[in-house]
Amino acid sequence: MSDALDFIVIGAGFSGVEAAYTLDRAGARFAVLEARDRIGGRAYTTPLDGTKTYVDLGGQWVGPTQDALLEMLDELGIETFKTYTEGRSVLSLGDKVRTYAGTIPKLNPLSLIELGLVMNRLERMARAVNLERPWETPDADRLDSTTLASFLDRNLRTRSARSVLDAGLETVFAASAGEISLLHALFYFKSGTSLENLITTGGGAQDARIDGGMQSVVEARARSIRDRIRLEHVVVGIEQKSASVRVHIRERESLEAKRVIVAIPPALASRIHYSPALSPLRDQLTQRVPMGTVIKCFAVYEEPFWRGRGLSGQGVFDEGVVQACFDNSPRDASCGMLVGFSLANRARPLLGMSQEERRELVLESFARAFGPEARAPKRYLDKSWAEEEFSRGCYTGLMSPGAWIGYGKALARPEGRIHFAGTETASRWNGYFEGAILAGRRAAREVLESER
Amino acid sequence: MSDALDFIVIGAGFSGVEAAYTLDRAGARFAVLEARDRIGGRAYTTPLDGTKTYVDLGGQWVGPTQDALLEMLDELGIETFKTYTEGRSVLSLGDKVRTYAGTIPKLNPLSLIELGLVMNRLERMARAVNLERPWETPDADRLDSTTLASFLDRNLRTRSARSVLDAGLETVFAASAGEISLLHALFYFKSGTSLENLITTGGGAQDARIDGGMQSVVEARARSIRDRIRLEHVVVGIEQKSASVRVHIRERESLEAKRVIVAIPPALASRIHYSPALSPLRDQLTQRVPMGTVIKCFAVYEEPFWRGRGLSGQGVFDEGVVQACFDNSPRDASCGMLVGFSLANRARPLLGMSQEERRELVLESFARAFGPEARAPKRYLDKSWAEEEFSRGCYTGLMSPGAWIGYGKALARPEGRIHFAGTETASRWNGYFEGAILAGRRAAREVLESER
Repeated sequence: MSDALDFIVIGAGFSGVEAAYTLDRAGARFAVLEARDRIGGRAYTTPLDGTKTYVDLGGQWVGPTQDALLEMLDELGIETFKTYTEGRSVLSLGDKVRTYAGTIPKLNPLSLIELGLVMNRLERMARAVNLERPWETPDADRLDSTTLASFLDRNLRTRSARSVLDAGLETVFAASAGEISLLHALFYFKSGTSLENLITTGGGAQDARIDGGMQSVVEARARSIRDRIRLEHVVVGIEQKSASVRVHIRERESLEAKRVIVAIPPALASRIHYSPALSPLRDQLTQRVPMGTVIKCFAVYEEPFWRGRGLSGQGVFDEGVVQACFDNSPRDASCGMLVGFSLANRARPLLGMSQEERRELVLESFARAFGPEARAPKRYLDKSWAEEEFSRGCYTGLMSPGAWIGYGKALARPEGRIHFAGTETASRWNGYFEGAILAGRRAAREVLESER
Repeated sequence: MSDALDFIVIGAGFSGVEAAYTLDRAGARFAVLEARDRIGGRAYTTPLDGTKTYVDLGGQWVGPTQDALLEMLDELGIETFKTYTEGRSVLSLGDKVRTYAGTIPKLNPLSLIELGLVMNRLERMARAVNLERPWETPDADRLDSTTLASFLDRNLRTRSARSVLDAGLETVFAASAGEISLLHALFYFKSGTSLENLITTGGGAQDARIDGGMQSVVEARARSIRDRIRLEHVVVGIEQKSASVRVHIRERESLEAKRVIVAIPPALASRIHYSPALSPLRDQLTQRVPMGTVIKCFAVYEEPFWRGRGLSGQGVFDEGVVQACFDNSPRDASCGMLVGFSLANRARPLLGMSQEERRELVLESFARAFGPEARAPKRYLDKSWAEEEFSRGCYTGLMSPGAWIGYGKALARPEGRIHFAGTETASRWNGYFEGAILAGRRAAREVLESER
């Protein structure tokens, strides 16, 4: 059969698209099955109605050392622009609001020293992680049997340092420090170069944004393979035979290929019916990589009024529904925009609310940082990723305590003719689009080599 | 339509059967859909070929304060018999094997004192847990943000006390202390009356076994409703409409009813496709309740040779593939049988092995405790529950760190016309058949009251 498929890729996020792109360059015949009516996955850009402005409802930043993404942008001729960081940032702590310069909020000297020490300690511990095999990291058993919160409990005495670091870490993980294995946290820091890099805006992981939005990147990358991507194809089953794999799709004809790349998070991959069943290690792994919890909130103003007051638009909050916010105005500052992240423990009470109810709470935080003007945006919108059927949380899947040492081997290891991509399987920039791209390439190489 | 259904129960384990039984007594019209070709779920009894002897491959014990199960046994006229506990138990620690009387193994005085203190502390902390709302327990945030292992790290200095307690706790949870939230551990202890009760054989949770095996209980309970239970009905979707629910079944006609009771563990319930999607809190919860890991291993001998040597057949091992073993001989001791539990970290390397390979490793542990005779059973068999498609682990689903405080509310709360049973939703005897029965009754009451 001349139209027989070599490969099927499940999921057209960054990882699936990059896998497919790689397969295409190798001359393979493939199809990409995407559950949504759009490609991009956790890269999701929407226009702000009636304007040229767009909003990245999903991931939006790119930064140094994300080399695959940066090269891709270069190759595709897509421009980036720096996240606005001029002026001072705001720290809302207890009943006080103060401003500071740089990455680390202004605390009393003792707290500041302690914060510096504990961050140094985390950085040092992270350097020892084995990125390819985290379970072989020295002392992995102990590090994976405790939470990041327990580490902080032991190493931070001052309340304000803890509050600030908690807000920062929640912004990094979209999860509470009490949900995450310490080993996973250290892995994640090193995977994204360093903790400092992950929490830094200018020059760090939040360095720059994409002209046209993040989804435009994956769309541009998919241009040459667009006819092979089938939208609204929800995969419900994967049946392995001796020399092929049959993929079952909700309310559609099934498809067959030699191998399959599953480019969706483990928590969603577990919901596909595998026949025969996957290995017990793989199945139990997928029970242990929950998605984070985040509501990304946007307030649009006539102009970025905070800039004129010497403020960067960046803020950290120890209370309220938002942990952190950033200036998210368009490149030309044709309007002002703040983006706030409501995460983990602070996001969960908002999950049942209407957008109107959430609006009030989010604007309360913004007003606390930037004054009463922030209460009256011309537009408010938000995106609750736990409510997205085909993500079920963001930013990423997080290894629960014990998951790395007990089940880590099964994360990226093929199961017969089924291979796994997705940023959750990446060793570099795990959880980011960079990791998704690298994982997609790795999985594509795997299937190509297997069928050579 | 006279044959219209009021309710559909998904899952014919103890919880689903008890829910159905309760519905039947109230005169409701219902169907029970069971994925397997048998009822019983994690109660699974198999005959030992060519003999009257049976083996409980799943849960097998009943003990004091499991009142619903005890009453059910009484009502059904099913007899129990005491687990054999006469004589001394064996502790294999490092290169030494020693024997002891009672529940707590013989350690050096210092270790023994420390073990006693830490167990007392756990019992005291457990008493403060709010069983109905664990997230409202005093200090719940802190208790749920750390692991049971971190607590032990802080409170146990002597290596032997830690080894023994780890083996005991792994036998209780089928998970490592590093995987479980401390709050969940405390909840679990109180839920099963006390930690001491959970680890005790005679007079505790392992007090007695069932004549005919545990599955015979659920079968007897199901006798009057057997015609309403449909085997090999794998539910793949649940569609909620304004006044009814449609349940989609793999390769069969769908069924409709007023309400549905999902009586399977959260990790499996997440694999059903819900339309409309369940609440984000419920969905994210199901990503955070992984099943434990256990291989239950049986060696059958001509006779219980250890008894003659004054040994109870009970053993605890700090190394090797088995954490604990028990005398599992039939009531009449017509043969001898040892049952060993390979759990969590020690079970995972065995998951990929053949039964023959596992046999050697398990018998090595048995021989260590009971001498070379243990190496030559007339029969060996084991059951790896992570490999069961419709359990995906045992004994039960365990709340990951942060799951109770973040998502606990969604564990047993109905989602529209969908209600939840299963031992994972029980406040008393969570994780045990007793909890399954209580949860089944509670869910049945819920749907009956909703439709009254």
